[in-house]
Parts: sequence; C-alpha cells; structure tokens
Amino acid sequence: MTRNILLMEGPDSKGLVYHVTKVLYKNDCNIINQDEYVSPAGQFFMRTEFESEKKFDAEIVIADLRKRVPNEDVKFRLNPRKKKDIVILCTKEHHCLSDLLIRYHFEELNANILAVISNYDSLKPFVDKFDIPFHHVSHVGLSREDHELEIMKVVNGYQPEYLVLAKYMRILTPYFVAKFSNKIVNIHHSFLPAFIGANPYKQAFDRGVKIIGATAHFVNNNLDEGPIIAQDVKKVDHRFSSKDMSREGKDVEKMVLTKALKLVFSDRVFIFGNKTIIL
Amino acid sequence: MTRNILLMEGPDSKGLVYHVTKVLYKNDCNIINQDEYVSPAGQFFMRTEFESEKKFDAEIVIADLRKRVPNEDVKFRLNPRKKKDIVILCTKEHHCLSDLLIRYHFEELNANILAVISNYDSLKPFVDKFDIPFHHVSHVGLSREDHELEIMKVVNGYQPEYLVLAKYMRILTPYFVAKFSNKIVNIHHSFLPAFIGANPYKQAFDRGVKIIGATAHFVNNNLDEGPIIAQDVKKVDHRFSSKDMSREGKDVEKMVLTKALKLVFSDRVFIFGNKTIIL
Amino acid sequence: MTRNILLMEGPDSKGLVYHVTKVLYKNDCNIINQDEYVSPAGQFFMRTEFESEKKFDAEIVIADLRKRVPNEDVKFRLNPRKKKDIVILCTKEHHCLSDLLIRYHFEELNANILAVISNYDSLKPFVDKFDIPFHHVSHVGLSREDHELEIMKVVNGYQPEYLVLAKYMRILTPYFVAKFSNKIVNIHHSFLPAFIGANPYKQAFDRGVKIIGATAHFVNNNLDEGPIIAQDVKKVDHRFSSKDMSREGKDVEKMVLTKALKLVFSDRVFIFGNKTIIL
Amino acid sequence: MTRNILLMEGPDSKGLVYHVTKVLYKNDCNIINQDEYVSPAGQFFMRTEFESEKKFDAEIVIADLRKRVPNEDVKFRLNPRKKKDIVILCTKEHHCLSDLLIRYHFEELNANILAVISNYDSLKPFVDKFDIPFHHVSHVGLSREDHELEIMKVVNGYQPEYLVLAKYMRILTPYFVAKFSNKIVNIHHSFLPAFIGANPYKQAFDRGVKIIGATAHFVNNNLDEGPIIAQDVKKVDHRFSSKDMSREGKDVEKMVLTKALKLVFSDRVFIFGNKTIIL
Repeated sequence: MTRNILLMEGPDSKGLVYHVTKVLYKNDCNIINQDEYVSPAGQFFMRTEFESEKKFDAEIVIADLRKRVPNEDVKFRLNPRKKKDIVILCTKEHHCLSDLLIRYHFEELNANILAVISNYDSLKPFVDKFDIPFHHVSHVGLSREDHELEIMKVVNGYQPEYLVLAKYMRILTPYFVAKFSNKIVNIHHSFLPAFIGANPYKQAFDRGVKIIGATAHFVNNNLDEGPIIAQDVKKVDHRFSSKDMSREGKDVEKMVLTKALKLVFSDRVFIFGNKTIIL
Repeated sequence: MTRNILLMEGPDSKGLVYHVTKVLYKNDCNIINQDEYVSPAGQFFMRTEFESEKKFDAEIVIADLRKRVPNEDVKFRLNPRKKKDIVILCTKEHHCLSDLLIRYHFEELNANILAVISNYDSLKPFVDKFDIPFHHVSHVGLSREDHELEIMKVVNGYQPEYLVLAKYMRILTPYFVAKFSNKIVNIHHSFLPAFIGANPYKQAFDRGVKIIGATAHFVNNNLDEGPIIAQDVKKVDHRFSSKDMSREGKDVEKMVLTKALKLVFSDRVFIFGNKTIIL
Repeated sequence: MTRNILLMEGPDSKGLVYHVTKVLYKNDCNIINQDEYVSPAGQFFMRTEFESEKKFDAEIVIADLRKRVPNEDVKFRLNPRKKKDIVILCTKEHHCLSDLLIRYHFEELNANILAVISNYDSLKPFVDKFDIPFHHVSHVGLSREDHELEIMKVVNGYQPEYLVLAKYMRILTPYFVAKFSNKIVNIHHSFLPAFIGANPYKQAFDRGVKIIGATAHFVNNNLDEGPIIAQDVKKVDHRFSSKDMSREGKDVEKMVLTKALKLVFSDRVFIFGNKTIIL
Repeated sequence: MTRNILLMEGPDSKGLVYHVTKVLYKNDCNIINQDEYVSPAGQFFMRTEFESEKKFDAEIVIADLRKRVPNEDVKFRLNPRKKKDIVILCTKEHHCLSDLLIRYHFEELNANILAVISNYDSLKPFVDKFDIPFHHVSHVGLSREDHELEIMKVVNGYQPEYLVLAKYMRILTPYFVAKFSNKIVNIHHSFLPAFIGANPYKQAFDRGVKIIGATAHFVNNNLDEGPIIAQDVKKVDHRFSSKDMSREGKDVEKMVLTKALKLVFSDRVFIFGNKTIIL
C-alpha cells in the first residue's frame, strides 16, 4: 500500500473533480483526504491524498489525467513530496536559523539544508557544530549588486529549490528576486502590512501597540509585499521597550517561519497572484 | 444558478468520491468546495458544496447516488441547510442566552428560537423584549424526573430540532437525554475534561491554573462527556478569584457556544462515536 | 472597612512611593494592591488600592499628600471609581452597541448609558427595548460641520464623561474631537496601524493576510492614530471573502471595545502622549 | 547608578509597603517598578526594582528593613538576580532540551547549565556539541530507588539551585522530590489538571478534544500536582492523530517550559501552598 499526493491547479470548469476521481478510481486508488478550493476569480485548486494497493504507475496516471483534462492551463503535480533542498541566508541573529538547524538535525524538517550564507561570520562556529557548510559573503566594500552576485554564485553552486531568509537583514534587488521567483521565503518581524520596512519593533513601540507579530511570506519584487504564508502575534503592554519587543518577538518569528516552511515543504501552499492558498 | 450542499457519511470503500462527483457531473453541477475525511477506523465523511445552472431535482440526484452507492450504511443528506428550529433551556445566567437572542433578533443565527425555558423566572422580562415565548418550569417541590416531564411537555409542544442548554444548571437524566439523542448542545464552563462537574471555576481557582476555558458539546448519557464541538480558553493569573474567573469566563462561554451552534446549524458537524468531525 | 483607590501621575522624583505610603499608613490605611510604572522619559504612574477600617476622610488624605508632594505637576485622583456617564454614537451596525446595551441592562458595565445617537434610525426599535433615549441625527443634506453641531447639541444635553464610538462610521473633525479631548473611545476594525482608513476588511482581503483584528483607542486629531487601549486578532485563511472577514471580525470588535471600556471605566488607563499605560 | 531588586513575602500587616519604601528612600534609592499582592488568606508578596546613585550597601538595607519589620515570618531577599545553576534531566526527546541549550549557548537563559542527565544515551552526541557534561544514568536493572540514588549522586556533585525535568519520563519518588523541595521544574504535556498521568496525547485523542496544551509546574509529592507556573494551548481538530498531537504539542511544551524558567530564573515566582504568585 503506497500513499500518494496529487496537486492540481488551473481555471475551473465543470467536472474537474469528477475527472480526477474517475482516473484514480480506475487506477485502483482510494482517496484518503481531498481538499478543494475555487477562488472567486474562478481558479481551481485541489490537493488529493490517496492510497494504492497495487503497483502505482505515476506516468500512466498523469497521461490519463491529461486525456480527461486536456486544458494545458490546468497543471498536475504528482507526488512532489520529498525533502526539499534549501539554502539559508542570515545576518547576525541566530533564533530562526538555530530553530531550523535543530529540526534538521533531528530530522523534523522536510528539507535538506545544503548551506548557510551570511554577510557576517559570527554564526559560523555555531553552524559548524551541525556539519553544514557556512559561507561568509561580506557586503563590506561591495555595491548591493556586486554583493548579490557573490551570494548568487554560492547559491547556484547548490541548486536549491528554496532560499530561506532567516533574518537576512539586507534588501534584495528585483534582479535577484526574479532569479528565484516564488522560491524565496522571508520572515518579517511585524504582522504585515503594519510596520513595513526597517525597525518594525521600534515603529511598534513608537505607536504604542498592544500586539506585536511576525509574518512569513514569499518575496517578490517589492520587499515585504509578497504572498503571506503564515502570521502570528503576541500581546505586549506599556512596559515593553522596543528592545523587549524585539527579544520577545523572536520566539514568534521563529515559530512562524518554521510553520510556514513546514507548509511549503509539504506542498500544501499554492501561490496565486499576491496570495497563498493553503490546502 | 442554485447553491446546494451534499453531506455523506458511512463505511469507506474505493470510489466513493468518484461516484458522487460522477453523479453531480452528469446532473450538470459544478463543485465549489469539497472537504472529505476518512477516520482511522475507516469511516468516510464528505461535505460537498456545488452549483447548478439548470433546474436541480434533488430526488433524481439522490436516487442516482443510491444506485451507484447501494450500501445503505452510507447515508446521504442533500440540502439540509435551512434554519433550524431550536428551544433554549437556561437557569439564571443571561450571557449565553442574550448572545443568542441578539443574533437571532438581527438574523445572524441560522435558527429559529421557538421558545426559552427556565427553572427560574428572572430572565422572563428580558426574553419578553424579543417576543419569544418564555416558559417558567420551576423545579421546586418536584422530583428530577417529574420536573423533566414538565420540561419535556413544553419542549414537545414545539418539536425543535435542537435543544440548546445555555447555562442550564441542572443535570439531565439519561431518560431525558435519550429522547433527544445527538440533539442537545451544552456549554460547560471549563476546558473539558478538566473540572468535570459542579463549580469548575472554584476547582480551577483551587488548582491554581493559569488558563480557564469553556467547552461546547453534545450531551449523551454522561454529563460533560459527550462529543466536543468547540473549545476556547483565556489566560488568568493569581489575582483572579474564583468569582473573577467566573465573570471573565462568561465571555469565553458565550463565544464558544455561539461558535459551536453556527457549525452545527450550518450542517458542518458529523458525530461519530464520542467525537465530532467538522467539515 | 472601605476600599479606596488612589491614582497618581507626574514627573518622577525620589520618594514618591514612600510619601504616598506614609500618608496612607498614618491614616490607618492598608495597601491591598499597588502597581507602579516609570516611563523611560521619567513620567511616574501609580494605582493604589487600599482598605481603611476607620472613617476615611478623602480631603485630609489629599491635603496630606500635597503637603508631602508639593510639585503641582504630580496629580492625585482619589476614589474616581464610580459609574461613568456615557453617550454612544453608532451608524447601522448593531454588534458593538448591542453588547454594551446587554451588559448595561444586566449591570455589568461600570457606566450609565445616557443616550444613543445615530445618523440612521434603523437601530431605534432595538434601543427602545432598553428604555434608553435614541436620537436620530441624520447627516443627509448637512455639511460635516453642521451635522457635528447637531450631534454636539444632543451630546451636550447629557454632559457625558465619555463618548463611545460603537462603529460610528463618519470621520470627526478636529474641532469636534478637541471638544472631547481624551474622552472619545473608538473601535477600529483592524489591528492598527495596519489598514488605516476606510474598508479595512477589503484591504485585508486584498493583501491576503492570515490574521484580522480590531483596535480600541482614544480619538485625537488624526483618526485611527490616537492612543491604543486594547487590540485582539482572529485567524483567517484564503476561504474568507472580505464579507466573511467583516462578519467574523465583528465578534473581535465587540470584545475589544468592551474590554477597553471596562479598563477605562475602572480608571486603569492613563494617557501619556500617544500611548496608554494600563495599571 | 545600580539597579537592585527586593523580594518580600510574609503575613500582611498595615504599613509593610510604607516601611519598605521608607528604608529605600532613606538609603537614597528610587523605586522604578513595584508590584505587590495580598492573597485572600492575608499573605503579602512584593517585588520592588529600584535604582541607587550612591554606593549601595545591601547589609545595611536589610538590617534597616528588619528593624522596621521585626516579624521574622516576613522574609526579605535582596538582589537574588544572578544566573541560576541548573541541572537538566531528560529521557529521549530533545525538543525542550535543545531549546534550553540553544538559549544557554547564546546567553539568553539566565542560568548556567551545569550538566545534563538522561536514563538513555541517545542525546549525548547532541549535548556534546555544546560542551556540557552529559551523564548517562541508565535505569536498566535498577529499582526506582536505586536509580534515583545514582541520579542524586550525579546531581549532588553539581549542587544546582534548580533541577529542570525537560521531558524526563520517569516518576520521581517522594523521597527524591523532598530532597529538592520547590526546586524541581517539570513540563507536563497537557493543560493540567486534564490528562494527568501517562500518555496525555493518547488521552486527548480518545476524548476528542479541540485543544491540547502543556503545563510547567514545580514538582511536589504528587506528580502533576505541584504549583503551576505557566500553561499554553494549541488548537487541534479531528484530523490530528495522537501522534500528530504529540508532534505538534512539542512546540507548545518547549515554549511553556522556557517561559516558566525565565520567570523562575528572574525571581518573579513566589510559591504559596499549591499555587504560584508571579510578580
């Protein structure tokens, strides 16, 4: 008995669910979980988990599906669920990085951490403990573009499926972002869209908010404006300095980033326009 | 264009989703939302929302479904979503009752409140404002059984689909409960199974907990042990007396009861053994 | 045995706590709860609850306090805790209003609702149930300034201590706001400062957030920018239309407004610059 | 300018706050934060943070305090805030342990981790990365009492102020517990008092709860019944197997344990009977 996953996305039309379930039925597959969503604009998304007793031939199933759903705008992905290869970018703060390293070390993260890159070297001794390559790519004396080229060289040596910005505190150029379209996950230390930009905890302190938060999102051209994957918050009060908020917010940041990555790495996150659909 | 809902429950077998979607497809229906679950024990649950452009004949669809799924243990319910008729039982506290009355008054509750019954008359003037019949059925001088018979007489006069215990502070006998199997929703003022029984806030205070809660559940033979529909909690600290907990807990109670009822009244709640499946 | 409350606020200096506690001690008072805060800028806030066995003479205590703390910038308020007189402004939505009316009706709100004013008359029949004067002050055909003058006339007839904007959907002019400095509490249907301005749920939907919220705050010159009293949030997902968000957000709005008002009406909220200190 | 902390606890009597603030005032100290609580049973607790410009002599202050508060049942602790020495006990699960090790490594835990003890050796390689002594004290072939004696020998070699049970899955005898009265902090994987004892996630699954939780508490004679320090919860639904609950609950467990330890290590937690007072 094997467990398989089928992801499907495209313009809605009558009978999509029927066609898929028919193909699965004919291939002796039993559906265990099926979650489906049609957006107001008519985009169809479906995630189907199914079991197969007999030998399961993915190619035949995909061909069958295409025969019944000839519209090429409808995309199928069958069994993408394997460990994702990722590279992590960070600066000086450890909390998101260390949470990921620990989960990776104990095989709780559905990913292979191929390397860690930082524009500082302060986290190198820590990363070394986990036998993961650490690359110090300093930005000192380099233009933003030249620094990014250095980073890109290192990244490209690993061919990762995802780049994780685990508190990487530098702004990326549209050029860089375009190279990894829908493949960069960032953690921003506010509940976006509040406090876009630099120093969100300072902004939160100045505004006197009673709640702080964190947002994990894909990065597209405009920093802090990509599709949101996960958000969470924490209550604060007048006794919190912006430094206190920053310290207490770190736990929210790391939990939100990890939660978002778990969803992404288990192929539950569809991107559509500026939003995510999570099935 | 009409919007319809199909609920389905029974022993799992290969092709159930296929058979249903085929019937819907053949009847020119387009699935908008479909959520499906198979329990570890092999029980299948599915909730399907679909649209139909042409005239939709429920009888034909049901007959079609039964032809393709002849196993009578698999139950279909088509378009049960209409306003539910309910009777509310309460004692002296108003907070759950008033939340329901307000929502009913402003047509935000998917139900008709046919009557309110209480073993005290103190809430009568308030209920009267909303032009809903109020029945004072005092327990004074009556055995538990005789009091319940009086209650039952009033209830049966209304033939409600659900009985809502909105802080009805008397224990119901198994006889009474059996008469309304899976039809009584109760709000208990603790996060069950903590603090079963009387005076849960007093118990919570004595134990020194840092969180209090509330639980909405169906009532079966053993009080406080029926299938849980919804739970929520609130943080407390050492400054809370048991009276403070009781006062602050009321907001949690009313929100949890209302949330549970919204789920039940929109036919999203399946009962299976001692648990609920919410699709 | 009487229970009293002393509020104190002003520039910090050495010995403030000592002077107050000495005066209370000499007047045979026993401190039950004392909470104190000094802001980074050196502003001192203290709330002291104390019991007195003998006859308690507030004037003598205040005179004693002033003798020991001659700096007139340090303000004392003794026993302000009585029911506050309030007037509620609303438009068409009932949820915040009805929550306040219910709590008032059952004497759970530390306030007297003197009147309800709305620029529509749709909520009049509901308010009438609670025997509270309802004033319909239509804005139709009036300039913003003239409409506000009409409102002000009604308000001034009641001399309330607080104006509560329970989903009053019109922008107030600086002139109006200045008349009730630090006396207007508003509920905004977003976690400020996200989604300032009109249609925050529409904005939230368009941005694809995973959390919506509400903010209760004092109103000063710039709408949505006054000192925040309370905030709370609720998780949403891609299935929520902006209408769903609006409907589900109402429960958050009413709970946040009520929570903020309870704090304000129990004299726990100090305003300092653009922030609140809550003791 | 030095920052100092005074903790005080004992039977309430009139003037306690006055006496303390007078002594501080006479010693040229300025109070920055003061939080005070009197229990219904008349026990007084106070935590005072103050600054001193001149040389601060703790002995003189303590002697002064005792002179003004001669009742020896009133205890004073001045400036206990230094890093606590702790020993961690665990079994096979890493999540609470690793969270503590990471925070210790980056100097975010107000404690020195002197050693880690486990009845299994599987976590040794991980602990070794952090240069902390790891003691494998197997229980195999030993009576509970003899195993505890072995543990105690190791513990006593370190003289820790606190023992942290970071998912130590063995029951401690009253003898062992008595040796470390009020010094053992445990994390239990349920919101106590729900699901006391073994396999709480299995119990939670069987009961069909919609919320799971974790509780950090001091350990006294009866396991799972000591004073609660912190609790938190997480929503679950019918799709969670008991294994899913266990996996998802780990994040709650580690956050609750860390939160509780931060409170304990910063001397904010008073124990009184079966409860904690947290100032």
